Parts: sequence; structure tokens; C-alpha cells
Amino acid sequence: MYMKKIMTIIAAVAVACCSLSAQEALGRRINTTSPEINPDGTVTFRLLAPKAITVAVSGDCLPEGNAQMKENKDGVWEYTTDVLDPELYKYHFVVNGTDMLDPSNIFVCRDVTSIFNIFIVSREQGDRGWLYQANDVPHGNMSKVWYYSPTLKMNKRMTVYTPAGYVGGKERYPVLYLLHGAGGDEDAWPTLGRAAQILDNVIADGSAKPMIVVMTNGYPNTPAAPGEFNAGVNVSTVGGRVRGQAAATMDESFPDVVNYIDKNYRTIPKKSARAICGLSMGGGHTFQISKRWPDTFDYMGLFSAAAFVNKVSYVDGRRVVSDEIDPEIEGQLATLFAKKPKLYWIGIGKTDFLYEGNEKMRNYFDSKGYPYEYVETSGGHIWANWRIYLTIFARKIFK
Amino acid sequence: MYMKKIMTIIAAVAVACCSLSAQEALGRRINTTSPEINPDGTVTFRLLAPKAITVAVSGDCLPEGNAQMKENKDGVWEYTTDVLDPELYKYHFVVNGTDMLDPSNIFVCRDVTSIFNIFIVSREQGDRGWLYQANDVPHGNMSKVWYYSPTLKMNKRMTVYTPAGYVGGKERYPVLYLLHGAGGDEDAWPTLGRAAQILDNVIADGSAKPMIVVMTNGYPNTPAAPGEFNAGVNVSTVGGRVRGQAAATMDESFPDVVNYIDKNYRTIPKKSARAICGLSMGGGHTFQISKRWPDTFDYMGLFSAAAFVNKVSYVDGRRVVSDEIDPEIEGQLATLFAKKPKLYWIGIGKTDFLYEGNEKMRNYFDSKGYPYEYVETSGGHIWANWRIYLTIFARKIFK
Repeated sequence: MYMKKIMTIIAAVAVACCSLSAQEALGRRINTTSPEINPDGTVTFRLLAPKAITVAVSGDCLPEGNAQMKENKDGVWEYTTDVLDPELYKYHFVVNGTDMLDPSNIFVCRDVTSIFNIFIVSREQGDRGWLYQANDVPHGNMSKVWYYSPTLKMNKRMTVYTPAGYVGGKERYPVLYLLHGAGGDEDAWPTLGRAAQILDNVIADGSAKPMIVVMTNGYPNTPAAPGEFNAGVNVSTVGGRVRGQAAATMDESFPDVVNYIDKNYRTIPKKSARAICGLSMGGGHTFQISKRWPDTFDYMGLFSAAAFVNKVSYVDGRRVVSDEIDPEIEGQLATLFAKKPKLYWIGIGKTDFLYEGNEKMRNYFDSKGYPYEYVETSGGHIWANWRIYLTIFARKIFK
Repeated sequence: MYMKKIMTIIAAVAVACCSLSAQEALGRRINTTSPEINPDGTVTFRLLAPKAITVAVSGDCLPEGNAQMKENKDGVWEYTTDVLDPELYKYHFVVNGTDMLDPSNIFVCRDVTSIFNIFIVSREQGDRGWLYQANDVPHGNMSKVWYYSPTLKMNKRMTVYTPAGYVGGKERYPVLYLLHGAGGDEDAWPTLGRAAQILDNVIADGSAKPMIVVMTNGYPNTPAAPGEFNAGVNVSTVGGRVRGQAAATMDESFPDVVNYIDKNYRTIPKKSARAICGLSMGGGHTFQISKRWPDTFDYMGLFSAAAFVNKVSYVDGRRVVSDEIDPEIEGQLATLFAKKPKLYWIGIGKTDFLYEGNEKMRNYFDSKGYPYEYVETSGGHIWANWRIYLTIFARKIFK
């Protein structure tokens, strides 16, 4: 067995040395097991790097954000964490000061322009890790869908989740519009956001209604995620977006998306069967879209939202937020809440840099008697919070 | 401008040091431009690694398969290639002997258990790079679809491409079944195989008919790609497949896929509008499936196929290929060719390790007078060849 493994490694190395190696490279990077989730709930990272001077692991599973690894006699650097709570974690290695991914872990996620390794810790059904992983439950389908936006005068790409049972069925479904943050795109919620896994799991355990979920690209001048449109795969589109003016704003153009979905999917095409939510910039979009179109959505979710009720002006190109409430926003919000939406949900982390803006918004809502539900979590402007908010919000809507 | 960049880098580093950094990490890995496609057709790789002893780049764009990089005064290691032909290339860095990805390039592809960076060189419309990149042409949709296979008694995941115009249209389309190789899964053709881009481009330039393309998971005991089913994202499923016996073989169960597609998509449900092709193991599956179900497909494509006409037996668990033709295969092939399929297409590289097996198959076909088309390319058992074969095959079918 041991000899066979050695031979496999030798063969793999030999193949990796050939130019144009493809599937033959099987095993090239498999020199250590990493990360290893230990029975006691700790996790061990390993990297074979015999010539390295320093190796650290950096990630959200570490109390300090990073930790030095130690080299063992075989040139493998190791580090074992404390016992970890159930969660999806991301990490990378730092070798002699240079960031690198764990070559033993094929699970990677891109977040805007950074790529991380990920792993999931789950101990029992229903815990956070369980909610974010693929379990033995019915799975919905995820599609990358191109549509034309007449308002934006361009073709755009979105991700659409249809729940298990949709294909081949006759039932009509409510729709959740799920928006990404600044720098993100239509691939953000499906990857680090774990949208498909969360929806599969909360539908399977009976805590949420089956629903269609629509994940748009939130830049009105950008067709799609990097590499998926004619900017090519060679352009470093930092933040994923194209420069230049759009034909309209995201909130002005959003009915194009709703119309497309209602036309081409078995939806329940009415306000009581539509929800919209988003993180950060997407929370701001949720704020703007829902008040501009007060008859379209009955459920709003603002996750760490870049949402402001104050008047904003631009002085020498700089954004200045005044203490005055914007009269247009005031009027739109009055109309929205006069129509008594079923849920206006706000979630934010205690250390989020948008906390103060959210507080001003909530104070304004309180002063007007606009009803909303509010959840405050620990931590800041992070995916760990946005996954929690999606889980909470998905369980509250369409009921 | 320069100062602003420095500030951005400092801010990014500060953020990366916090635990649980998420979108704020924007720019953390953007310290150099790499790869840079130069106006003269060469490509420059760069890596900031001031403490490294040796840095090499390894990839299929290098005549020897790898090259040593040189450190400049800023601690950035650099290497510039020769002028490169239009193509999709993959590469990674080797720092002090340890493999790592290029932290400046967000474009990565998994092939079985290895992850590479990719980039594309294209000079003009119609060249190989153009065929593999997203251009300003109508785009089809790519969906991850779960279906139940009654023969395999399990839920399985596949990727389905529907051409531009499918959604909202009334037209019926022919279907290409496109199969991956050993160790691969339903994500192989959509990533390194560039199936969506190739199909978009050959349909847009009028050289291929609009068609649906179905990319299955070729392991009859495996539901889906790693991380997409309940083995979790922590299991190193080497080769992506589950161990253990399946309820049936891939070729026995394949009608389940065809039935599902014909039931749930606007197909032309007849032999003349169905093609099947695959690479390596998927070429073997194409060979087996097409002869077992001689009334189902009119177009067959064997790409570097693991296809054998000889009798195979197992002695002490070892596979022994005899010189004798397998009588069951002989009979099935006779039936298949008696029904005069429209195309039996075989492609292989001159240095492919399956070349001899393919030669035996072709010799047998010649001896029987079975018509086929044959293309021999340079190179071996590589994705570069499989993308070429898909491009050729897609342009020949349904005409």
C-alpha cells in the first residue's frame, strides 16, 4: 500500500514535468492532507515547503486572523486550530510573506479579486456548517441565464435557482431576488454565499417555502462576472465592473429583471410572492428598488446595507452626506410603508462600518413609526453574517 | 496616482490582517500584473516573492514545460515567453519547489484534483483563442441540473447548455451528449473544456447548428462533482468519484439521461438529432453507449478514446487485453453500422498513450468496411486536443 502510494506520487511528478499535462497530472498537488478536520473538533493545516523560512496560515478560523506554522522533520509545516464552531471558513497560506493557496485543497472560492481556500465544520443536522454544505436532501438547479434589459440596453447574466421539483412540475413559486455587494457579481451568492446549499437545506427541513431565487449582476454597465463577457479572461477587472456610464441605474432598470423572470419561469407574479434582499451595496439596492417600486415586493431584507435616508450631494466629486433627510427618499418611503409591506428586515454586525448609517435609518423609521424587524449580530461586514441573514430571511418570507 | 496605489495596498494589507476579512480584502493579492499579454505576442509572468530562493513557472505555454524566473530589484520574479500561438494556456508557479497559483490572476480551473491558472491568447476572430473566450456574441445558458436515474437508483447532477434563443422560444433543438474523462465530472467540459464558449462561438459564426449540450457525470456510483453532494467539501475524493459498486454501468443507464432530456427540454427526440461524444473514458463511454443503443444516436465522436474492440479479461484483478476481438462488441458494432449512422468520428493525438488501442480499433473498422472520419493531431492526451475535437465535431453534426 505504502509502496503503491510512493509509486503514484513518482508517476504524478513525472507527468507534471511534461508540458501540456492535463488529466495525467492527477495527484500532482496531493502531497499532504490539508485541511484535516480532527475528531476533537480542531483542524490541522499542512504544507510541504522544506525550503521555506516562514509559513503562516491566515483565515477567519484563527482568533488573531493568522498563525505561524511549524515545520516537522519531513519539511511539512503544520498548524492545528482550537476547537472550531460549525461554520464555513476560508484561509490561505503565507510563505515567506507571499500569499498562496493550499495545494492540497481543491475547494477554492473567489471573492471579488481574491481567491481563498474554504472548508466547512459541521457537527449535526441544522448547525451552521450543515446549512452551508451539500447534504443528502433534494437539490435545486442553478442556472447562468443571459437576458436582455431594455432599460440598460444590454445583455446581462444572472444566476437563477429553481427548487427541487420545479423541473417537470406544474406548481408556481414565489421569487426571492438576492443581490450582491460592491465588487461582486452574479457568481457571489452562489459561491461564498452558499445560496443553493442554504436554500436546499432550509426547504428540505421544512423551515422555508420552496422558492425561485434570482441573483443578478448589480452593476448596470457590466454584463457579467469577469471572464464571462467580451472583456476576455485576461482583463483584471478589479471589482468585476466595467468603467463608464450606464444607461440607467440598477433601481430604475430592475423591473426588466422581474418581467423576464415572470415571463419565463412558473412564478406567482404578484407582490405577496416577491421578496428582495441584498448585502452591502445590494442592501442599498434593495432599499432603493423597493421604495421606487412600492407595489412589487412584500418582503425586504437589508443585510449590512449601504442604505442612507440622508441627503447626499457631491462637492468636487466627493460624496457628502448631510444631516437632512432626502425629500425624495422621504416621500418614497412614506408610500412604501403606507402600502403595508409584510416584512422589512434589517440585519447588521455590531462592528460593521455601516452600523452608524443603519442606525440613522432605523432612527428615522422609528420616528415615522415604520415597522421593521431588526437583528444585530457580532462581527462586521463579512460573508459569515450575510449567510446567517440569508438563512433567517429565507425562513421568514412567503408565509 | 502612484501614491494612491500605495495607499490602496496599505489599506488592503491592513484589512487582510483582520480576521474574517471579506470583500474588504479587495486588492490584497493585486501586487503585480500577471500574466501580461504583450503587444508582440509574448506573455510575461510576475510574482512578488522577495525571500524566495528559486521561482519557476510551469505550464503548457513553455517549450520545456517550465522555466526559471528571474528576480528584479523590487523582489518581483519575472519570465517572458516566446511569441505564443492563439490558445488557452494553463500554468502555475513553483516557489522553492512548492507549487502555487499566481495570486495576481483570478482565473483558475480545476482539472480533477489539480488547480491551475489560465489565460487566453487570441489575435483575430476565428482563431483558437477566440473560439475559447467569451466574445460579443449571443450567449447560451449553462445549468446545473439534478435528475433521477431509475437504472442507477440515484439522483445525479449534470450540466446542460441551452443555446441563445432557447428561453422564451418555441423551436426544438438537436442534442449533443458530451462526456468527460477519467477523474472528471459534470464540471469538466464547462471549465477547461470551454464548452459554453465554443458552442456560443461556432453557433454565432454560423459554422454549427444551434443545439442543446448535455454534460453528465460519468461515474455511475457518483452523484456529482466534489463538494456538490453529501460527501461534503472536506472529502478529498481523488478523481471525484465515490468508491463502491454501482447499480448498473454508464452505458446501461444512459437512456435515463436521454429520456429526462427529451421529457424536459424542447428537443427533436429522434436519432438524426442526437449526437454523443467524449474524451478518454468518455470516448470509451461513447463507444459503448452508441453500440448498445444503435437506434439512439446518429453522430458519434471518440476523442482520445479509451475504446477497445479486443476481448478483455481479469486475471487476479488485473486487466488483460487479448488479441481476439470481443464477440459481443463485434455483434453490436455490426448492428450499429448496419443502421448507417451519419458520422463516426475519431480524433487522437500522435503521442497519446491510447494511440495503439485506437489504431487497433481503426484497423478493425477498416477490415469490416465500417466508415469513419479520422483526424490525427500533434500532442497527446490533453485538453488542448479535446477542445479542438469538440470544435470540429460540433461543426459537423446535425447537417
